[in-house]
Amino acid sequence: MGYYTSHNNNKKSVKMARILSNKLKEKIGEKVELWGRAYSKRELGDDLVFLNLQDRGGIIQAVFEGENAKNADVKVGSIVRIFGVVKEEKRAAAGVEIKGQRVEVLEAPKDELPFDMSKKALKVDLSTLLDNRPLTIRHETVRSIFNIYDTVIAAYSEIMRDLEFKEVKTPKILGAASEGGANFFCLDYFDKKAFMAQSPQFYKQMCVGAFERVFEIGPAFRAERSFTTRHVNEYVSLDAEFGFIKDYTEIMDMLSQAIKHIFKKVGEKNSSDLKFHNARLPEIPEKIPAVKLAEMRKIIKERYGYDVPKDTDIDPQGEAYAAQYAKEEFNSDFIFLTHYPKLQRPFYTMPDDENPEETKSFDLIFKGTEITTGSQRIHKYDDLVKSIKDFGLNPEDFGFYLEAFKYAMPSHGGWGMGSERIIYKLLNLGSIKEAILFPRDVKRLHP
Amino acid sequence: MGYYTSHNNNKKSVKMARILSNKLKEKIGEKVELWGRAYSKRELGDDLVFLNLQDRGGIIQAVFEGENAKNADVKVGSIVRIFGVVKEEKRAAAGVEIKGQRVEVLEAPKDELPFDMSKKALKVDLSTLLDNRPLTIRHETVRSIFNIYDTVIAAYSEIMRDLEFKEVKTPKILGAASEGGANFFCLDYFDKKAFMAQSPQFYKQMCVGAFERVFEIGPAFRAERSFTTRHVNEYVSLDAEFGFIKDYTEIMDMLSQAIKHIFKKVGEKNSSDLKFHNARLPEIPEKIPAVKLAEMRKIIKERYGYDVPKDTDIDPQGEAYAAQYAKEEFNSDFIFLTHYPKLQRPFYTMPDDENPEETKSFDLIFKGTEITTGSQRIHKYDDLVKSIKDFGLNPEDFGFYLEAFKYAMPSHGGWGMGSERIIYKLLNLGSIKEAILFPRDVKRLHP
Repeated sequence: MGYYTSHNNNKKSVKMARILSNKLKEKIGEKVELWGRAYSKRELGDDLVFLNLQDRGGIIQAVFEGENAKNADVKVGSIVRIFGVVKEEKRAAAGVEIKGQRVEVLEAPKDELPFDMSKKALKVDLSTLLDNRPLTIRHETVRSIFNIYDTVIAAYSEIMRDLEFKEVKTPKILGAASEGGANFFCLDYFDKKAFMAQSPQFYKQMCVGAFERVFEIGPAFRAERSFTTRHVNEYVSLDAEFGFIKDYTEIMDMLSQAIKHIFKKVGEKNSSDLKFHNARLPEIPEKIPAVKLAEMRKIIKERYGYDVPKDTDIDPQGEAYAAQYAKEEFNSDFIFLTHYPKLQRPFYTMPDDENPEETKSFDLIFKGTEITTGSQRIHKYDDLVKSIKDFGLNPEDFGFYLEAFKYAMPSHGGWGMGSERIIYKLLNLGSIKEAILFPRDVKRLHP
Repeated sequence: MGYYTSHNNNKKSVKMARILSNKLKEKIGEKVELWGRAYSKRELGDDLVFLNLQDRGGIIQAVFEGENAKNADVKVGSIVRIFGVVKEEKRAAAGVEIKGQRVEVLEAPKDELPFDMSKKALKVDLSTLLDNRPLTIRHETVRSIFNIYDTVIAAYSEIMRDLEFKEVKTPKILGAASEGGANFFCLDYFDKKAFMAQSPQFYKQMCVGAFERVFEIGPAFRAERSFTTRHVNEYVSLDAEFGFIKDYTEIMDMLSQAIKHIFKKVGEKNSSDLKFHNARLPEIPEKIPAVKLAEMRKIIKERYGYDVPKDTDIDPQGEAYAAQYAKEEFNSDFIFLTHYPKLQRPFYTMPDDENPEETKSFDLIFKGTEITTGSQRIHKYDDLVKSIKDFGLNPEDFGFYLEAFKYAMPSHGGWGMGSERIIYKLLNLGSIKEAILFPRDVKRLHP
């Protein structure tokens, strides 16, 4: 720790504290010390060096001129301390730059960087981007993605608490793959077999019986052999579930409030991060449009001449047309599709009163991709047992889940939202994997 | 949804909205409607019924007298609407009660409750408590635990963001059990073997190289065959990691800020929840005392006549004496033990400058139980490679982790904190499992 001792000793030198790159505006004319990474460098002859420093506040340019230029002899990628004077510079994005005096190298890279990290765009293919994640997350354009992700998570917690939801943490290791479906990862749990949770569905419903309104932010695991740009095998789900609802429309209203708050916060906190991706905030009308799925299939056929395949509820091409319709008709980047067929939704989904082949369910489509799935749930014990049987399942396999209903549950419903899909669509990324620090897909378990 | 239609139709009846039990003080003298669970009931003869209603705001008493008493014929545990008038009642905890007029039963339990849920203490053994979790989490005393848990999680996020940490989400499925140790759950990941993350250690360190300060709230999985009151196999870890530290003491200072903020918030938000457990806020001195482990072993021997076994760093009995010492000497419910031996800490722990057999590491003991483990990490590539070899491990197994260091890392360190242990010790619960909604232990995979 030798390089820090100058801060701790009692010599009569002027003690200078570190300052962050985004706190320089009030320091014009002052001598400062910055710590961070030598992000990029440009040398113009022997007596002019531009050195960009990256710290947690952002990027700042330090200019080393004349005699000082030789003091900026530092490998890009190094961890450094820069000493200099703050100078107003209207042409700089930050409004200031550093008149550099001296650089102290704390740590230097052991090797040449495998690709150029100093350009505004990081021009590597997806495999390289992900294979070298410890390095590529240091790039400003990549870092900006996770600055926004942080805001999304914080804003979701904030709005849910404002709406009087309690945060719960439910188990990710399950004793039974009881939701049905084959896409569970299997686990050796001591002498038993166990399963990784695909969602907190049963647990959040049981929590409604105690806390009425709950939300959860946690990982979800899906053993799907998908190779699309919008699927991964581990993702972070933003869940909510709440009781005493009058109708499924109350769930869509609650979700709309959450969505609006998330993008409001991104607008407040991440305008410079959005610029890295030439992205702008989505259009969200006062009321997000909602169209029945069957109706939307007709609209797509009539308006765009496309037949949504009969063996799907709606396919990606259909979702894209639904989004186009929402944009054209309502100037909205969001649209709810509602009333999915009973057989294409899980057994716990509440059937519609008027047409029991349809359900009180919805997907929320954001710029053509489903980001949220939700529904009202069946809350009467007898109806739930019957639905389990209708789906060819055995009520005895749902013992503890049914216990909640045996001892009375209020009407309720909720949603699961893919946190990374919000970012993926907002920034128009090429793949959802770019929105995940260390993504997992069928082939990818490292880093 | 028949029972809600009165809200939606256009008849000229007076439309009454639901009100929560904790919002009644401003409604004295008014007719109100409450929704919730019939939590407990007392009948005094034919014309006096006391009915407690539970909703997300808490518990409120409704008194049905005279003619109205027959209207309160409702099974305990039912989901109900109660109609009545708000009355000031100084003897009630809430300061008000409801003069009950009518009860509407929305859902009734299908069966007698398996045990009495209406007493102030839920007198069941731990197995019954956990086996019947969908039901027992409805008990006020149990619910209060998770009200506090919600505050702890919220407060941790809040203070970490205030301290300029970014929230990250790192993968829970790993390609290698690379931290060493045998306590990993194994997973079938398509055609490969994978492992459940014991901690986000490597990932949060890599994130420091990009974001400088990160925190994570996420599950951690430990395949330990432990049968103690303070171990579970899945828990929620409150992690933090940050760069450009001068010393490990900076980590302890940062953690102390987080701890203080958490209990400040619990004090503000959960005073009535604490009362259910006769718990009070812990004593936290301005500076939490810190004692070297070797020193503490001597103190325990001299002061309490106990020999901490030679084959442990410190055993639970030793931790209890350390806590007693902290209380007696510093009136503190917390104490840091520092400088754990190198061989009892992971390979990435920074050795001490003065005695390389010891490390710049610490545990935080809260009322006799370790709740946090932290340290400064080795950040120089060559030192890290050497340490991996010293531990008999192969640097080739740490490829992507080492990549971060090869391309320069700042000095850094951090901690992992067991969220449930905070609650367990704060409330003096009999087992940490009581602090988890649906705990997982060697024998328990359900509910």
